[in-house]
Amino acid sequence: MNNNAPRFAVVLSGCGVFDGSEIHEAVCTMLAIEQSGCTYQCFAPNTWQARTIDHFTGHAVAIAGDEDNRNVLAESARIARGNVKDLSEFKAKDFEGIVFPGGFGAALNLSDFAVKGADCDINVEVRRAVEESYREGIVIGAMCIAPTVIARILGKEHVKVTIGNDKNVASGIEKMGAKHQSCNATDVCVDSEHKVVTTPCYMLATSIKEIYDGTRNLIDEMLELMDY
Amino acid sequence: MNNNAPRFAVVLSGCGVFDGSEIHEAVCTMLAIEQSGCTYQCFAPNTWQARTIDHFTGHAVAIAGDEDNRNVLAESARIARGNVKDLSEFKAKDFEGIVFPGGFGAALNLSDFAVKGADCDINVEVRRAVEESYREGIVIGAMCIAPTVIARILGKEHVKVTIGNDKNVASGIEKMGAKHQSCNATDVCVDSEHKVVTTPCYMLATSIKEIYDGTRNLIDEMLELMDY
Repeated sequence: MNNNAPRFAVVLSGCGVFDGSEIHEAVCTMLAIEQSGCTYQCFAPNTWQARTIDHFTGHAVAIAGDEDNRNVLAESARIARGNVKDLSEFKAKDFEGIVFPGGFGAALNLSDFAVKGADCDINVEVRRAVEESYREGIVIGAMCIAPTVIARILGKEHVKVTIGNDKNVASGIEKMGAKHQSCNATDVCVDSEHKVVTTPCYMLATSIKEIYDGTRNLIDEMLELMDY
Repeated sequence: MNNNAPRFAVVLSGCGVFDGSEIHEAVCTMLAIEQSGCTYQCFAPNTWQARTIDHFTGHAVAIAGDEDNRNVLAESARIARGNVKDLSEFKAKDFEGIVFPGGFGAALNLSDFAVKGADCDINVEVRRAVEESYREGIVIGAMCIAPTVIARILGKEHVKVTIGNDKNVASGIEKMGAKHQSCNATDVCVDSEHKVVTTPCYMLATSIKEIYDGTRNLIDEMLELMDY
C-alpha cells in the first residue's frame, strides 16, 4: 500500500438491489479500489429506507413509518462488515474520490427519483456530500441508476453522465439539466471538465463478471482524472 | 459460455457477516465461478435466522421466535438479486460442485456450531445436500467457518479441511472426526480423496482483495478435481 494512494469514499444506500445498494456493484467497487492499490471508507446516510422489499418474493414488507422498516446506515453496514460511517461525518478534503454504487436504494433512499423522476428530492447529507466534493474538485463516480442523483444535484452545471440507454431515465436526466451519453454495459462516460465518471452496470449488465469489468473501468478512469 | 462448463450450487445462509453469509465471500465466489467460464445457482434453506444483528451497532435486534426476526432464504435473495432457490430443491446430479461461503450464518443458521461447537446440529436440508453431494461424487467447497459444517457431516469419513489457524475451531473440527490442516489466508486445503476443498478467507484475511484471491484459488482447485 502506497501512502500517497488515492482514498475513496463509497456511499451506500442499504443492502440489496430492490431497496438498497446493489450488492455486486458495491462489493466490486470496493474490490476494484483495493486492486488498484487504493483505500476506501464506506458511508451511508442515517435515515429510514423508503421501503423494505422481500427479495425472494419481490413484495414490499414495510414502508417508511412502519416499525419493522429498515435503516439505511444499519443495512449498509452489512456490506461494509460493520465498518461504515454516518454520511454526516464525510469531509471531501479527506478523499480524492467519492463513488455511488447503484441499486434502487439510490433512487429511493438517496433521492426519490424512482417516485418523482426529474422533480426528485435529494437526501440532505447526500446533497451536501456531492456539492462539497464538486467544490473541492475531488472526482465523483456513479454507476447504474445512481448518476440520476448526480444529475439532480449538478444538473445546473450541465454535467454529462450515462445510465446506459434507457430512454425514460435518460430523458429524466436531461430534464434535470444534465447531458446523457448512451453507453454499453461496461463502458464509462467521462466528464473531465466536471470530474464526473459514470458507468451503466446492471442498467445493462447481465452478469457479475460484467459488473467486475465495469467497476474496474470506472475506478481506472477516476484514477486517470486524479493523475494517479 | 461453454455448454459443458461445470455448474456450481452456491449455498447461502443469509446476508451479512454477523448473522448470515459473509457478503464479500459470497459475491467473490459467484464472480470466480463466472470468471472461470462456469455457471452458478444460489440456494438457501427456508428457515429462520438464529438471530438478527444490527451490523452498525453489533447488537442483536431479534432472535429466533421474534416477529421481526429474518428468514434465511429471503435475506440470501439479496445477494442473489432474487435468483435463489429453496435448498430443498437442490439435486446433486444437476451440478458438478457445491460451495458454502462463510459468515456467522454458516455457524448459526446452517448449523449451530457457534453455540454448541463439536456437538452442533445441522439444518436438515443442509445435511441432505452435503450427503447427497458426497454420495454423487460432486466436489464440495467451503470457506471461512463453513468447513465446520462439512466436518460435522463428513467427519465420520475423516475428511481434511482448513479454517486457517484458530486453535479452538480446529480442535472442534478434530472432535467431529475430521482432520484440520493449518493454512494461510488465501491458501487452499485439498482433500482429493473425499473431493472436499476449503480455504480460510475472513478467518484470516484482512482485505477484500484477499477474499478475491482465496475464492479464485478455491474454485480453481475445485475445477482441478473435476478434471476441467
